[in-house]
Amino acid sequence: MVKENIKQLLEDIRKNVPLVHNITNYVTVNDCANVVLAVGASPIMADDILEAAEITAISQSLVLNIGTLNQRTVESMIAAGRKANELGIPVVFDPVGAGASGFRNNTVKQILSNVKIAILRGNLSEMSYIAGLQVNTKGVDSAEEDNKIDGVSVAKKVAEIYGCVAAITGAVDVVSDGTRVTKISNGHKMLSKVTGTGCMTTALAGSYAGAANINGSKDYYSAAIGGIMTMGIAGEMAFETAGHMGTGSYHINIIDAVSILSNEIIEERARVNEE
Amino acid sequence: MVKENIKQLLEDIRKNVPLVHNITNYVTVNDCANVVLAVGASPIMADDILEAAEITAISQSLVLNIGTLNQRTVESMIAAGRKANELGIPVVFDPVGAGASGFRNNTVKQILSNVKIAILRGNLSEMSYIAGLQVNTKGVDSAEEDNKIDGVSVAKKVAEIYGCVAAITGAVDVVSDGTRVTKISNGHKMLSKVTGTGCMTTALAGSYAGAANINGSKDYYSAAIGGIMTMGIAGEMAFETAGHMGTGSYHINIIDAVSILSNEIIEERARVNEE
Amino acid sequence: MVKENIKQLLEDIRKNVPLVHNITNYVTVNDCANVVLAVGASPIMADDILEAAEITAISQSLVLNIGTLNQRTVESMIAAGRKANELGIPVVFDPVGAGASGFRNNTVKQILSNVKIAILRGNLSEMSYIAGLQVNTKGVDSAEEDNKIDGVSVAKKVAEIYGCVAAITGAVDVVSDGTRVTKISNGHKMLSKVTGTGCMTTALAGSYAGAANINGSKDYYSAAIGGIMTMGIAGEMAFETAGHMGTGSYHINIIDAVSILSNEIIEERARVNEE
Repeated sequence: MVKENIKQLLEDIRKNVPLVHNITNYVTVNDCANVVLAVGASPIMADDILEAAEITAISQSLVLNIGTLNQRTVESMIAAGRKANELGIPVVFDPVGAGASGFRNNTVKQILSNVKIAILRGNLSEMSYIAGLQVNTKGVDSAEEDNKIDGVSVAKKVAEIYGCVAAITGAVDVVSDGTRVTKISNGHKMLSKVTGTGCMTTALAGSYAGAANINGSKDYYSAAIGGIMTMGIAGEMAFETAGHMGTGSYHINIIDAVSILSNEIIEERARVNEE
Repeated sequence: MVKENIKQLLEDIRKNVPLVHNITNYVTVNDCANVVLAVGASPIMADDILEAAEITAISQSLVLNIGTLNQRTVESMIAAGRKANELGIPVVFDPVGAGASGFRNNTVKQILSNVKIAILRGNLSEMSYIAGLQVNTKGVDSAEEDNKIDGVSVAKKVAEIYGCVAAITGAVDVVSDGTRVTKISNGHKMLSKVTGTGCMTTALAGSYAGAANINGSKDYYSAAIGGIMTMGIAGEMAFETAGHMGTGSYHINIIDAVSILSNEIIEERARVNEE
Repeated sequence: MVKENIKQLLEDIRKNVPLVHNITNYVTVNDCANVVLAVGASPIMADDILEAAEITAISQSLVLNIGTLNQRTVESMIAAGRKANELGIPVVFDPVGAGASGFRNNTVKQILSNVKIAILRGNLSEMSYIAGLQVNTKGVDSAEEDNKIDGVSVAKKVAEIYGCVAAITGAVDVVSDGTRVTKISNGHKMLSKVTGTGCMTTALAGSYAGAANINGSKDYYSAAIGGIMTMGIAGEMAFETAGHMGTGSYHINIIDAVSILSNEIIEERARVNEE
């Protein structure tokens, strides 16, 4: 059922070409723009306070990513987020490195208390931090799989606290809206050897969310799952094509795979399990 | 005749390796630097007000791109632009997203009233905005082909108002200096599926302009056409090599094609028509 | 002997996965993150003064790169550098464009007088500037090979003045700690046609330095040589695989080669000569 919703959203992305406003980091921004184009949507990057809210107002979704946060753009993120809330535009938030520094923690708190989030996507350590659990973060890259935290309960808790769709990506991906839970078991471990695969997943969720906004379904649960599934399938396809060549070619082939994704490929490859 | 000028400029780029100062956006900056290197010139990126003008002074051309403009770098763009004007260094300006926000519109106005531009390159909606026409901009990516505006008259009008070479890229590319008009019909529609192909075109025009500055011809009309033709040919070659693989490989093959561009390839492929 | 140390460090990178904090430029930052991942370490980019020192404190090495320096991040570099010094974390410094503007020169001076550097890597013109010699810098890209400055004496001089490992990259690469001198003759001239190969070399040196910090050897001399050798070998391998395709594919294949680097490949290809 969720899989059918995702197929519909993919068609809608390509038909309606949602404009996806990204306020994001300068490390992975080029990949985020290219993956949004690859899936069929249209990216716009604008982070100055003098235009952030105005650009949001012409967009169909807003993606906030604090990968290289700074004081200047945090202010823009909040202004853009508030405008999105005002206009019913979905906000997708990627709390990169939550738990890793006081500044990141304060920023996460500030964004979550000022902006209503539609989809919150992070790795297990980031989402555990947001759920209020004790975590040892090591940088921004990997979920701490070994700290015995259960992804499902973290996702449910985050979804309940913030009234949003919570998406945790890692060895197994979990999405919950507080009631429903879906696990996605696509993906490949080589994805962790390319910077920005998490950011790209968030940007893909933003693309699906834009389509779900335009088509009126407002089905951000399926949008989150669609974003994660798309990156997971792309990670598998890229590995088959270029895994043996190295991480540079693998990186490029991820974008390739997203750009040729079709409902036939989803039908064949998606491993999306509603629990 | 223009085609012969472009061939000469390409040789001059590779012989004289002009230094091209770019104050540009953080989305496509890596591609811009790599495409400048690929065509044979040398890129330098420097955007702080404490050095912008000084770096311009040692360069052979200046490229201004407002893709992710912010208050800090707009000031640097104007300082660098004035220094370029003072020293007779050509300024190439890419008004990304003109028409999309008040901040962009004010910045465009501020740059155009403070800096004499040699080449102004944008898509049809951006250039229509600059020509003073009513437009509906949708983001930063695509010219609105459907609003019945005629590219030739827009290019001529912009060229006349600002005394510059005006270059409009889209389905068909048009360049005018107010009197002459040239159409370039190279290119491939897949170019619109990679972020930054517009920015790269502008950076290529900056590379040709740097060569035209060094060789004393100051032929910025041919430089603009050369930049557009180079991206167009590269877009065709990349499609032949990698179009079937997806947009990631296509992206990389665009840079490949620019780096192997030769006068033989120009002779064979250029579709440059002086009207 | 140095070659054996490098092999050990490469194993240690992959076993201990050092966290490498980069405060760097927005042109090549994506490549720097990906090359750090490719060699087996973990990158983190954070440049706001509100978190720079805190992120350094959880990292195993710190890389400072002034490619697109600005007033905001220079302050963060110094705060991060001081914290690194306080905690015994090695600082690797890439003085991009030293000699090209007053702002760059002042920043270099400020960093060198506030932060104790473990490894200083630049091209010949940058390092000559730092050694106090008269140079004519042309942009940020290439060492001036023709100004008759001897790399070995420059490296020795910089190492003596700043009590660090000095690494000069160019046609021949030289590393000195003031006493010892090692030349690395790996590499390929096509490396100069891709932006950021210098920055990536510095980030690789930072990855090796992080491993040398964790394993307690603090052997930053071998770390610097290891970083340069890794990029040199990758440049050769990428040329063999993709040199004929163009600079875009070559770029991607550099990352590929780093990701598949092994001690067998080092044994076979390294041209590291202790003098």
